[in-house]
Amino acid sequence: MSNQNQPQKSQASTSGGASQTAITPTRAENYAEWYQQVIKAADLAETSAVRGCMVIKPWGYAIWENMQAVLDKMFKDTGHRNAYFPLFIPLSFFQKEAEHVEGFAKECAVVTHHRLAPGPDGKLMPVGELEEPLIVRPTSETIIGASFAKWVQSYRDLPLLINQWANVVRWEMRTRLFLRTAEFLWQEGHTAHATAEEAVVETMKMLDVYADFAENFMACPVIKGKKTDGERFPGAVDTYCIEAMMQDRKALQAGTSHFLGQNFAKGSDIKFLDQSGTLQYAWTTSWGVSTRLIGSLIMTHSDDDGLVCPPRLAPAHVVILPVLHKPESAAAVLEYCKKLATELRGMTYCGRPVVVELDDRDIRGGDKMWSWVKKGVPIRIEVGPRDMEQDSVFMARRDKPHKEKASVKRAEFIATLTTILDDIQSGLFAKAKAHRAEHTKQIDSLKDLTDFFTPKKPAKDNDQPEIHGGFAMARFSMDTAAEAKLKDDLGVTVRCIPLEGSDDPGPCVITGKPATKRVVFAKAY
Amino acid sequence: MSNQNQPQKSQASTSGGASQTAITPTRAENYAEWYQQVIKAADLAETSAVRGCMVIKPWGYAIWENMQAVLDKMFKDTGHRNAYFPLFIPLSFFQKEAEHVEGFAKECAVVTHHRLAPGPDGKLMPVGELEEPLIVRPTSETIIGASFAKWVQSYRDLPLLINQWANVVRWEMRTRLFLRTAEFLWQEGHTAHATAEEAVVETMKMLDVYADFAENFMACPVIKGKKTDGERFPGAVDTYCIEAMMQDRKALQAGTSHFLGQNFAKGSDIKFLDQSGTLQYAWTTSWGVSTRLIGSLIMTHSDDDGLVCPPRLAPAHVVILPVLHKPESAAAVLEYCKKLATELRGMTYCGRPVVVELDDRDIRGGDKMWSWVKKGVPIRIEVGPRDMEQDSVFMARRDKPHKEKASVKRAEFIATLTTILDDIQSGLFAKAKAHRAEHTKQIDSLKDLTDFFTPKKPAKDNDQPEIHGGFAMARFSMDTAAEAKLKDDLGVTVRCIPLEGSDDPGPCVITGKPATKRVVFAKAY
Repeated sequence: MSNQNQPQKSQASTSGGASQTAITPTRAENYAEWYQQVIKAADLAETSAVRGCMVIKPWGYAIWENMQAVLDKMFKDTGHRNAYFPLFIPLSFFQKEAEHVEGFAKECAVVTHHRLAPGPDGKLMPVGELEEPLIVRPTSETIIGASFAKWVQSYRDLPLLINQWANVVRWEMRTRLFLRTAEFLWQEGHTAHATAEEAVVETMKMLDVYADFAENFMACPVIKGKKTDGERFPGAVDTYCIEAMMQDRKALQAGTSHFLGQNFAKGSDIKFLDQSGTLQYAWTTSWGVSTRLIGSLIMTHSDDDGLVCPPRLAPAHVVILPVLHKPESAAAVLEYCKKLATELRGMTYCGRPVVVELDDRDIRGGDKMWSWVKKGVPIRIEVGPRDMEQDSVFMARRDKPHKEKASVKRAEFIATLTTILDDIQSGLFAKAKAHRAEHTKQIDSLKDLTDFFTPKKPAKDNDQPEIHGGFAMARFSMDTAAEAKLKDDLGVTVRCIPLEGSDDPGPCVITGKPATKRVVFAKAY
Repeated sequence: MSNQNQPQKSQASTSGGASQTAITPTRAENYAEWYQQVIKAADLAETSAVRGCMVIKPWGYAIWENMQAVLDKMFKDTGHRNAYFPLFIPLSFFQKEAEHVEGFAKECAVVTHHRLAPGPDGKLMPVGELEEPLIVRPTSETIIGASFAKWVQSYRDLPLLINQWANVVRWEMRTRLFLRTAEFLWQEGHTAHATAEEAVVETMKMLDVYADFAENFMACPVIKGKKTDGERFPGAVDTYCIEAMMQDRKALQAGTSHFLGQNFAKGSDIKFLDQSGTLQYAWTTSWGVSTRLIGSLIMTHSDDDGLVCPPRLAPAHVVILPVLHKPESAAAVLEYCKKLATELRGMTYCGRPVVVELDDRDIRGGDKMWSWVKKGVPIRIEVGPRDMEQDSVFMARRDKPHKEKASVKRAEFIATLTTILDDIQSGLFAKAKAHRAEHTKQIDSLKDLTDFFTPKKPAKDNDQPEIHGGFAMARFSMDTAAEAKLKDDLGVTVRCIPLEGSDDPGPCVITGKPATKRVVFAKAY
């Protein structure tokens, strides 16, 4: 029993037993590899034999289902309705917006044939060449625009507020589970409005919805901002985003909302008769979040023992681990645990039923416990014969050290469950916010900026790899050439021009020219 | 006001005003065209510019969302978990099961390139040819099999019970909205088991789930049965199905469940160590239903005034139509209706909140009423100033003639709402069941069979087009050649060998050879 509480080593372990963590390597040792190992240990996803495409495994897909449920309700509460549009976009449609096609041309999967037949060597090969190649949608502005052009005739048909849940394909050369894959799942909102003002209001409203979701469900603090011209969505007038800081201090763009002006309306001929009887082009928006959010969630909260999942999106809230090794009490303990599970499942947390896993597998108690630690379940409950006799349970929280367990009366546990879940949820958010605050710095000279982004050994532990500073809040004159040079020199980009608190006139940190705002400079995923 | 209750004519009307129905043509006049016009009038879907792909519009997609919610819960309640697998299947994977690839080779969308670049004429063309072509999944046995082979090692990993919600592509030459499109949405269950017996139990269990869903939610009576060898899924050992009768007496296959034996396990190398330590191939199943179900729902219940939607799957349960043409009372009536809507929305019907549409558009009352009749909303409520004064509403049911309205006290309406919805639901099922019974006949000679399927004028109305008999229950010796000839001669196939009540030894209706069972012969979608 003495080693039962030792972490179960991942197979990738190379440290020879010295490590006391369930994930090897640790975040400090190798952040990128730690990320892959957390995904593996929590059984979230895996690469497939198809170049760049991932398999989302049940535990990872459950997080996505929970994200979908919350977002879908938010979209419907703001007046949007779901619909579904074709997977394929004829090449001629795709070319209707010049910047757009240029932006996506280098990463398109193209369907050219519609049959297979034996070739000269007897092997199957594509036959039945299409008259016009079809692009597998990388995003649907152009194909949805074709429908909108039919649906919109009069100002009475506006606003048109549509959302689609779908898969999209962007052929990526360097892929990474959840963060960057050739195929991914997402939602894409597409709306059309009678005026530019209304379209801008919609763009900002959906950015707010995303920020609300990121902060209050994912427990990821985000900065709402506008992209610079160099980082705009191809074809958009303005792109807005939410940017989060990961534990390695890099930025991750967690969602975007685009004001498309009349660019796509002109390309797709979305016109309406206004109230005065004049034919006008509509103003459109689009906005999306994807399975990338799962990568963001993992990298914001997880630790060296595996996934840490915010309760509001967790596949399970509670796991019950009955202690069954004594034959004389095993049946009674299991029965006690089943009753507890049933009772908990009758409760709700944040509008969905409490999800309980009861793990009665016949494996070592330590392995069993660690498997759920690695999966990030917020609350673990152990029940042995003595606990049962005292009508109490042993409770551990995923946001505390794994050895920190407390005996709690069963009734008290049930009465306080949702409070504990909320406490974990808000604790994760506060911790992430503190981390971001700690690694965000106002910077006023190019020398300091360069220094900030030059990786250094952490002060306290010189065995650790070097790490850079984080988010630099510095004045920028919006000079596209300067931005490109910074990317080349330091691998740093302007993540966004924050919507709030960024006004602070002074000299640009790079060009020295007059600037009006501080922007977020960072390395990014 | 006198013509307010006249149906709003569809634009396809060619009858010059004689028709009293909202849909032109009627079912009797031209069933196939009626179907298209119902879809158009209810705003369910439309064809797209992409060959064979449909756009599912919000009202149609809402039916699919309701279907998904019910089915997803049924799958989870039977122990299945959702996951997601790649859209693309490498050609080499697809070939792993010989019958399978042969079955789908003629209808595959094939991705061959991954970029676009200007060609010699300056126009964009596909470049970056892939080393191996990728098939856009027509079904996912082979790609999911590759994952299962990794996930299954020991008998402890079984059963593996997975479901995927996804889009699939089968290149169809003759397409029809919902019933047959190149891309469609579906779910596909894929499971692996340690024994053939367990896999068969799973196959039948999911067939039962489908039948339960069809009858108790779609209100479509179905016959559960087994397919003949000629109609099996390519690569399956046995295919089971549920078959429904449409109003034109044709059959529609509404769902299938396949026992795949070890065929795909061998192709994908899904092996496990059994309890005795022997390496064995797993036994697999797959089962699916698709957006085709929406076509079945439309054709089972709708009438010459448009869509009739069973309450349990309806996008909205109630539409409230305030009578607002008197300026002095309009504001009060609207307020009254809004309060009623809020109160109804606080109720639940069959586990989901009651969905209420409140239509305060400034259009003619008749047009407004007819638009909701055509959309199939189960209950319509009209509220005018006088109704309001008496605290009552005018109620109409979509399953009754449109002029049949009754004044009901507001409190009584609210108290009886769910009972009325259930009454509509069960009434639709009973009606469909009676229709099927009326047009199902035991047949014992080839002459009678031929006669049954030869279209004739309906007895009562000789202006109507000819129609055939329906379902013929006749003995069959399972002779594949005879089945093929029947298809050529009469356009009739064996829909299924019913699981219940089909034992009835005697001579085969075609070959005269000894047969043990009566099967369902029918024309089919």
